[in-house]
Amino acid sequence: MPSEETKILLRESELPQRWYNINPDLPAPLAPPIHPGTGKPLGPEDLAPIFPMELIKQEVSMEPWIDIPDEIKQVYKIWRPSPLHRAHNLEKHLGTPARIYFKNESVSPPGSHKPNTAVAQAYYNKQEGVSRIATETGAGQWGSALSFACCLFDIECKVYMVKVSYEQKPYRRILMETWGATCVPSPTDTTNAGRKILEQSPDSPGSLGIAISEAVEDAATHDNTKYSLGSVLNHVLLHQTIVGLEAKQQLKLVDEEADAVIGCVGGGSNFAGLAFPFVKDKLSGKNIDIIAIEPKSCPTLTAGQFRYDFGDTAQLTPLLKMFTLGHTFVPEPIHAGGLRYHGMAPLVSLLVDQKVIEPRAYHQLSTFEAAITFARTEGLVCAPETSHALRATIDEALKCKDTGEEKCILVNYSGHGFFDLAAIERYLAGDLQDHEYAKDEVEKALAGLPEVAEPTS
Amino acid sequence: MPSEETKILLRESELPQRWYNINPDLPAPLAPPIHPGTGKPLGPEDLAPIFPMELIKQEVSMEPWIDIPDEIKQVYKIWRPSPLHRAHNLEKHLGTPARIYFKNESVSPPGSHKPNTAVAQAYYNKQEGVSRIATETGAGQWGSALSFACCLFDIECKVYMVKVSYEQKPYRRILMETWGATCVPSPTDTTNAGRKILEQSPDSPGSLGIAISEAVEDAATHDNTKYSLGSVLNHVLLHQTIVGLEAKQQLKLVDEEADAVIGCVGGGSNFAGLAFPFVKDKLSGKNIDIIAIEPKSCPTLTAGQFRYDFGDTAQLTPLLKMFTLGHTFVPEPIHAGGLRYHGMAPLVSLLVDQKVIEPRAYHQLSTFEAAITFARTEGLVCAPETSHALRATIDEALKCKDTGEEKCILVNYSGHGFFDLAAIERYLAGDLQDHEYAKDEVEKALAGLPEVAEPTS
Repeated sequence: MPSEETKILLRESELPQRWYNINPDLPAPLAPPIHPGTGKPLGPEDLAPIFPMELIKQEVSMEPWIDIPDEIKQVYKIWRPSPLHRAHNLEKHLGTPARIYFKNESVSPPGSHKPNTAVAQAYYNKQEGVSRIATETGAGQWGSALSFACCLFDIECKVYMVKVSYEQKPYRRILMETWGATCVPSPTDTTNAGRKILEQSPDSPGSLGIAISEAVEDAATHDNTKYSLGSVLNHVLLHQTIVGLEAKQQLKLVDEEADAVIGCVGGGSNFAGLAFPFVKDKLSGKNIDIIAIEPKSCPTLTAGQFRYDFGDTAQLTPLLKMFTLGHTFVPEPIHAGGLRYHGMAPLVSLLVDQKVIEPRAYHQLSTFEAAITFARTEGLVCAPETSHALRATIDEALKCKDTGEEKCILVNYSGHGFFDLAAIERYLAGDLQDHEYAKDEVEKALAGLPEVAEPTS
Repeated sequence: MPSEETKILLRESELPQRWYNINPDLPAPLAPPIHPGTGKPLGPEDLAPIFPMELIKQEVSMEPWIDIPDEIKQVYKIWRPSPLHRAHNLEKHLGTPARIYFKNESVSPPGSHKPNTAVAQAYYNKQEGVSRIATETGAGQWGSALSFACCLFDIECKVYMVKVSYEQKPYRRILMETWGATCVPSPTDTTNAGRKILEQSPDSPGSLGIAISEAVEDAATHDNTKYSLGSVLNHVLLHQTIVGLEAKQQLKLVDEEADAVIGCVGGGSNFAGLAFPFVKDKLSGKNIDIIAIEPKSCPTLTAGQFRYDFGDTAQLTPLLKMFTLGHTFVPEPIHAGGLRYHGMAPLVSLLVDQKVIEPRAYHQLSTFEAAITFARTEGLVCAPETSHALRATIDEALKCKDTGEEKCILVNYSGHGFFDLAAIERYLAGDLQDHEYAKDEVEKALAGLPEVAEPTS
């Protein structure tokens, strides 16, 4: 019988000792990243100028399990293992026979799942003598996570923050500065990529794609500086699997097995972190719904194409085979800034293409409504990104109410909304709208993509 | 041997079943509250218009232990038992032989210790059929805690927020609104007390004393409405003892005994909550330093007098025997809004007068410095109130470095600073100053107090 506990806790001694690498378990091989200059598959030497070697190895590793170094576990223990909560009050409010569990990643010092990889990346950079890291951030979750991690490992940190979020969320910037980082609104006039955008569009609200271009250029042009990405790449998703590994142990403690696993997707990392250990079970024959939730204003998985594209706007990154809306597409400035990305992690993309993961898109207003319902029942105020996952969770639970199914639903509560209250204020005042994505602009962006043939192995 | 764990956790089944009431263990009897009209000790009937009967009983109870109702424990379990952290990184940074433990009350949904009593008060009001509660809030911690609690028990909530904090911390207001409460800047023109202040001083920044007057008047003049106070009173401190009771269990798990217990004091509730279970041991002969930290700009315990005074500015509350700077004293608008109160809990005051508790005062800048040190070592960003306790903790640990003493220091990490980042920004930019309190104004405020003779029993 499922327990009546509200929080299922693990001891620090029960912290997972290894990350789960889904690469060897995939139902089809992952297409290799392509060098934008040569059109050939990327080698480790191509990535060495911007990433430390250990992360490059993890990026292509075919080992199913990778040991977590003690120094990383020591920092994880500041907040990990994170609690798994049973949403008793929400269940009661909905009148659902479903049992809802949420994995609370908001308890980390920066307030989201992001430090799971930030700490790992800072550690490996430190090991290899790197003294400065440049990165981009959308809503600011990633930038603050990397600032936190760099602070603990004594590394200088420079963050290019998407301008619209920089202006909407001053507190996120101050948080980064509290940890000693420098944060600037992107596009800036300090990089070629930024200047090019500003020439064409001086009032550009910025985008994750633009900010990535700036941070990569910064890393490539500064001494002893590497670049760090908070999502999309294989090694990032790898580090996040600690979330799902813990959740599995926690569900086991209360004799539960997940029937549905839900997360929001921007670049894919919080979703993959929770879901991949369950995808492993699904690939072994278990019946589990794995559901990825994206915003209708940036519907990468539900309206994009699965093909090679650049990760950034300025075409500085390798070409990745992924679902994409086209790297020149600039989504509406919705409040879930972390979900405003034209692409998607290649690992998540492949699993969607293979029908292992089911994508769904929601409009902004319905997700805010879910956030308020959650806050007024469970007491916790979530980030706008997280509210997408909660919307789907509530809808799944309501379906169970109709069918009478007693499903066990697991959702990633990826971050708190304490820095997003201005958006909640606007929602409560009726000042927010839903945004349809600009279909013609996506078509144009996709039409402009290079035709890249997948290398035959 | 003390364990090397970073967080010491309790299971929900280990949640304390009773609150600890220090009243029967006091070294001297508590002077009774005095009715401002009659000059006689207050009876339960005097409090009945503004408090539910169960809280009035708790206010005067001489039972050493009071059972926590199941409905309250059920809500507590959303975040309780809260973690006890070992501050390994801070210890290493300071080079101290001391062991530092912090009780993390910032993990509650509103982000501080305040819901420990807010949930209890909302529950007892609900039990007695109250449909609306009015209260005041300084920095917003209490107002958001009561909003959260009222939301879960389906009670309407009206919050009078000290104007200077209302303007400095818009996010706190939105948080209250997210939970369905109404929050207004005090002084308002909707109460007699507020109008009187505005007539004399239209630009008044407000104070906790003024806001209390407004909320008490609101409760007394609205149907089925009670008043709720977030600190000072005996029943509030009682509910907070769950903090110290948990901490004692947690220290025992790692074979530790506290040599020093530290908390910041505004009205006294987070401090008392952590400290009173340890005061009990001290009164039984154990050698423990119990240290209360206040701001130098509002030095109630270190520069005030122990005498009868009103809890509020408009003289609507009963007279309480406590340390006070005089109810007409308006402290400088420092960022630790929760510590800007002219008075102090009578229980804390008596124990300071009896030399059981040692008070210390710190200047604002030194506390921000401590907050930054803490953020850059332990990763957590604290509230300005909490930074006072951390300053003293760091100083105690540095003393141990000098003397070589391997003390066990326990501190209440009473709240996070996610809504106080504007203050950190100003500190980092060098825009903050220390404020000496206005000695002449305190003298004037104290000189204006009525001479009240303590009733002989």
